[in-house]
Amino acid sequence: MPDLDAIRRQLLAFRDERDWKQFHTLKNLIVSLNLESAELLELTQWKTDAQLDAAKGDPAFREALRDECADVLLYLLLVADDAGIDLLEAAQAKIAKNAARYPVEQAFGSAKKYTELKDTARKKARE
Amino acid sequence: MPDLDAIRRQLLAFRDERDWKQFHTLKNLIVSLNLESAELLELTQWKTDAQLDAAKGDPAFREALRDECADVLLYLLLVADDAGIDLLEAAQAKIAKNAARYPVEQAFGSAKKYTELKDTARKKARE
Amino acid sequence: MPDLDAIRRQLLAFRDERDWKQFHTLKNLIVSLNLESAELLELTQWKTDAQLDAAKGDPAFREALRDECADVLLYLLLVADDAGIDLLEAAQAKIAKNAARYPVEQAFGSAKKYTELKDTARKKARE
Amino acid sequence: MPDLDAIRRQLLAFRDERDWKQFHTLKNLIVSLNLESAELLELTQWKTDAQLDAAKGDPAFREALRDECADVLLYLLLVADDAGIDLLEAAQAKIAKNAARYPVEQAFGSAKKYTELKDTARKKARE
Repeated sequence: MPDLDAIRRQLLAFRDERDWKQFHTLKNLIVSLNLESAELLELTQWKTDAQLDAAKGDPAFREALRDECADVLLYLLLVADDAGIDLLEAAQAKIAKNAARYPVEQAFGSAKKYTELKDTARKKARE
Repeated sequence: MPDLDAIRRQLLAFRDERDWKQFHTLKNLIVSLNLESAELLELTQWKTDAQLDAAKGDPAFREALRDECADVLLYLLLVADDAGIDLLEAAQAKIAKNAARYPVEQAFGSAKKYTELKDTARKKARE
Repeated sequence: MPDLDAIRRQLLAFRDERDWKQFHTLKNLIVSLNLESAELLELTQWKTDAQLDAAKGDPAFREALRDECADVLLYLLLVADDAGIDLLEAAQAKIAKNAARYPVEQAFGSAKKYTELKDTARKKARE
Repeated sequence: MPDLDAIRRQLLAFRDERDWKQFHTLKNLIVSLNLESAELLELTQWKTDAQLDAAKGDPAFREALRDECADVLLYLLLVADDAGIDLLEAAQAKIAKNAARYPVEQAFGSAKKYTELKDTARKKARE
């Protein structure tokens, strides 16, 4: 299996063989990333959670999901490349930041945002 | 450096320590992926390409970019995990599919969609 | 109550008093429209349908919904103004187009897209 | 010409003739609004501002723009109807809120967000 960096290099070669870097401004790449995310969202349109669970077993639906997930990753790699960001490093740093924002004792079983969690924790401390 | 699979395992551990899987339906995860993509897009709002190029050198802007890219990747990993998709395999397969859709001789230096490229190629063949 | 055209004129006056037309390229306006749509979507994040139904009765949530809906409309008016589109005329024409795409006898009680509806209708006709 | 309320009534009649209200949860409607906004954004993909200005004169492009703008408005009307929001009232109130956030003397010719405008104003006051 290729690792993420191998995929990144394949993608840049694909781009450069077609002379497409000229179109890849940061804004254009981020717009395209948003369009691919929306295509992923479109696969869920009008479907209930139960219908989506069933659809996950359907080969055509799975292939559509796989293709759209891939498109999101490919544009994300291009954005990161353009901005000089190491995605794996960034992801690891973000998990650490989230762990600090969402301490297990406050966040366990809660879908609240960290800004609301703090308020709740502060209120409890005052009681 | 961690590889993508190590990040995925850290992320799932982070999620499970907080008992958050209950909120992570496929639709909710894809909605969240779209929200994070939009936050990345917001960083480009009202900025020209020249202003964005300058901003890439600004540490605060770079950190914001890095954080939003990380959030997109983290939700993409959760979507892929929920749907049983191997992201690296999917990305490699998609690059191959795109290579077939965009042959170098037709796509070189062109921003046209593959559906339009075919029309242009057909017209040229007729001439 | 103001009508849509009165709102449009108030909005253009607001823009011109601040000399903001210079930032309002078609792409920038459409990007901003997408960001406001995403803020509306964020209000539904992690909420079930039942929780959203309950939230509709909460004054703070209602105000947030109202504000984000307004933002979407305001950017849509700016996009339409920039492109020389009459929104009401466009909406009426689109309802007519949709009525042709989704004949009542085929579309009744179905969430299928019109492209799929046709396939289903064709299959039935063949039977 | 119809006014916005006439369009709203036509749209609700269109929906009810097809028995579609059952699919129109608030979340589904807002997701669909986001998908239509993304289709509008797709029309700008890879195009420069100069290319978009030229495209505005192309009948096929104009029709695509008009259709996507209409779709955004139609879903916005459904969202507003579901949430009991008067769109025109909401838009007028939001223009007033924005006028307070962006005083002409501070916001003239500036693309800064109101949160940044305040900081700039505060700094100037201190000087």
